[in-house]
Amino acid sequence: MKIVDLRVHSIAIADPPLRSSYGLHQPYALRTVLELVSDDKIVGIAETHGGDAIARGFEALKGRVIGADPFRLAGLLIDLVEGDVPGSSLDRSQTFHVPGENPLDLKQRLYSALEIAALDLCGRALRKPVCDLLGGRVRDEVAFSAYPFYKHAGGGGEGKDARPDEYGEALGPEPLVRQVKHMIAQNGFKDIKFKTGVLDPEVEIETVRQLHRAFPGLPIRMDPNCAWSVETSVKVGKALAKELGNGGYLEDPTAGMDGMAAVRKQLLAAGIDTPLGSNVAVTCFPDLREAVAKDAVQIVLSDVHYWGGLRATQHLGKLCKTFGLGLSMHSNSHLGVSVMAMAHAAAATPQLTYACDTHYPWSDAKDEVVAGGKVRFTNGCVRITDRPGLGVDLDQDQLARGRERYASCPYRKRDDEAEMRKHVDPNWKRVLPRW
Amino acid sequence: MKIVDLRVHSIAIADPPLRSSYGLHQPYALRTVLELVSDDKIVGIAETHGGDAIARGFEALKGRVIGADPFRLAGLLIDLVEGDVPGSSLDRSQTFHVPGENPLDLKQRLYSALEIAALDLCGRALRKPVCDLLGGRVRDEVAFSAYPFYKHAGGGGEGKDARPDEYGEALGPEPLVRQVKHMIAQNGFKDIKFKTGVLDPEVEIETVRQLHRAFPGLPIRMDPNCAWSVETSVKVGKALAKELGNGGYLEDPTAGMDGMAAVRKQLLAAGIDTPLGSNVAVTCFPDLREAVAKDAVQIVLSDVHYWGGLRATQHLGKLCKTFGLGLSMHSNSHLGVSVMAMAHAAAATPQLTYACDTHYPWSDAKDEVVAGGKVRFTNGCVRITDRPGLGVDLDQDQLARGRERYASCPYRKRDDEAEMRKHVDPNWKRVLPRW
Repeated sequence: MKIVDLRVHSIAIADPPLRSSYGLHQPYALRTVLELVSDDKIVGIAETHGGDAIARGFEALKGRVIGADPFRLAGLLIDLVEGDVPGSSLDRSQTFHVPGENPLDLKQRLYSALEIAALDLCGRALRKPVCDLLGGRVRDEVAFSAYPFYKHAGGGGEGKDARPDEYGEALGPEPLVRQVKHMIAQNGFKDIKFKTGVLDPEVEIETVRQLHRAFPGLPIRMDPNCAWSVETSVKVGKALAKELGNGGYLEDPTAGMDGMAAVRKQLLAAGIDTPLGSNVAVTCFPDLREAVAKDAVQIVLSDVHYWGGLRATQHLGKLCKTFGLGLSMHSNSHLGVSVMAMAHAAAATPQLTYACDTHYPWSDAKDEVVAGGKVRFTNGCVRITDRPGLGVDLDQDQLARGRERYASCPYRKRDDEAEMRKHVDPNWKRVLPRW
Repeated sequence: MKIVDLRVHSIAIADPPLRSSYGLHQPYALRTVLELVSDDKIVGIAETHGGDAIARGFEALKGRVIGADPFRLAGLLIDLVEGDVPGSSLDRSQTFHVPGENPLDLKQRLYSALEIAALDLCGRALRKPVCDLLGGRVRDEVAFSAYPFYKHAGGGGEGKDARPDEYGEALGPEPLVRQVKHMIAQNGFKDIKFKTGVLDPEVEIETVRQLHRAFPGLPIRMDPNCAWSVETSVKVGKALAKELGNGGYLEDPTAGMDGMAAVRKQLLAAGIDTPLGSNVAVTCFPDLREAVAKDAVQIVLSDVHYWGGLRATQHLGKLCKTFGLGLSMHSNSHLGVSVMAMAHAAAATPQLTYACDTHYPWSDAKDEVVAGGKVRFTNGCVRITDRPGLGVDLDQDQLARGRERYASCPYRKRDDEAEMRKHVDPNWKRVLPRW
């Protein structure tokens, strides 16, 4: 079996006006869908970050991909992830780049998507689920978490393509709790990952408390994406020890490895062992040595899109367990192909014991490229079946609509800061720490 | 595809009287060969440590193995390697147990062999080489090293089954150099791993110097299996800085994580950065955290037989690179099935940049269970071909002869100390440190 084509589809999907410390989500999120075609007409698929830069990256790799045996593709391209990652941990981090927009991890992102597409292709050829090409599932049900955001009114999309606003505006505790109630009613999630760093920390603390009262048994994670100083991080950590310490965690409260280490140290000194999660300070394997040495991070957020794919998630799991770290999973705005890649990675990674993050409830069924519509969460979980590969097929008409949206929308890279200036405050700048 | 049978073959193979700090090799080394049989009559094979204890372990697992899908077997049995490993690092280490005789790592050894047999079975079913089920080879040629030992006269085997002594006695520098010349002439090795901890350190230092003069371009590793005090280790490290520092290393000079760390610290203080390798202080993932924290080990010796199999070797490779450690590979007395499992692991593990250890030249072609005879080293390397699975088949007649040798020999576990008392010194005890 040889690869005879790599089709790169840049698409846009409606995205509601969600807030984070990075700014505001644009009306469209950009994604790239890959089709890896074999000489016997089997097509493996993957989904990753979007925009022009990554699409150009895939085009530039075509010469190495076409003609390759899909069973050997990950090995053939190993230089993309085993070459030295340039930059200091701060350059490599997502402190100053939203995920998917850091040129320093472009190679890992290209590799990851190609590894996933090759696994899907091999799985389809062998009629085996992807997780069973990775040693075999250790779980049949993969848990995801509710992912509430403070948000403005609007459902995403622009002009005639503007979408209904299923969730409504949420810029304070009460509407945020209503948002989570709706999200959990729809999906059955058993964990809450709450994006913060948007409102005054006192308001966010109150929001967490109201969430905790509304869902007393559910672990809560709070993720301000570095919006806080060490002092504020410690203050929040102390105020919410009970709410976050009960199976939840505090994710990237402050910027940089040293800041994270200082927060940890001060919380421990106060008798609070709420773990610190990270997908900002730690975004690739080379960051882990410093993170471990400084005890800066206790839970690593994997991501099949930029850590190196599914096997890298397994490597990361073993590494985390070895060094006493927990393993969770990060998400960006995405569609169903990514849901399934994340689910297969989690199914084949025994150490991934936290529910995975997912933006999936924020996507509109109208944009789904997976045949048959959106993947369903049942009791908050995606079920791993015996379907070959990732277990989903592309709807080519839907994919074509995604390409049309990409062609007609003005966005070519994610820029939450520009969007914030456009809609909220013409002088807005991302300032770290903000509080 | 379902597994319908697991055949466990305990065999014995002739082993020459090789010396180490553990004592003396018995006339027979014990191995176990597995056959994992599918309902469509495909048979996956693996080879591991021998003796009665591990054979009983496999028998006890049959209920979990038979009926399983071989693509899922590693996932189904994951508790064997993900359950907590009991004991302190000293209990888990091979300081007081020869490899394959520590009851604390029995579960990992059972898992490793079953993972390998399942991969071979899947590879045969799909007509794919094992390394290409692991992401694909990153190299076609896997380098192994010459592995000289001080030895007594004799070729292994007993009584009418005594074998010709191809290498002769070697209990000093000159015969040891002759041994290596013969071994390299036969196999083309480009590295020398030298088992020491047997004679006075001054004699061993002189042996390394003579090896270095005889093979000036070849990296040399010296492995006394903990025979030395910290002081002696540092003395040898200083004396041989040039000879071992040139791409070689000093393996397990002294016992225990703290001893290793002290040797490292004192060598560095003397301006000598000869790395310390280990397959004694560090034998499983849980040992790595302490080893990294103390800088006790700079090169980890993987082993497909007890670290958890081939995927675990990949995990270990990524972990080692992440923490700035080198990766090498350990060996025991073995036949061609193990050679191929080691070679496929190395082919699919980019970070494995050292030549693998191998006792293979010490085995007698008469005992080989691989059809067609011993696997060949060309220029010191095993070539990874396109043959399915591990790329070798069993010769059932040879396997039957191995079982007969097992049945007729008196050995049921490896015991180098007893053998030393029997043949060399009736009062011999393993004393650490000896020098």
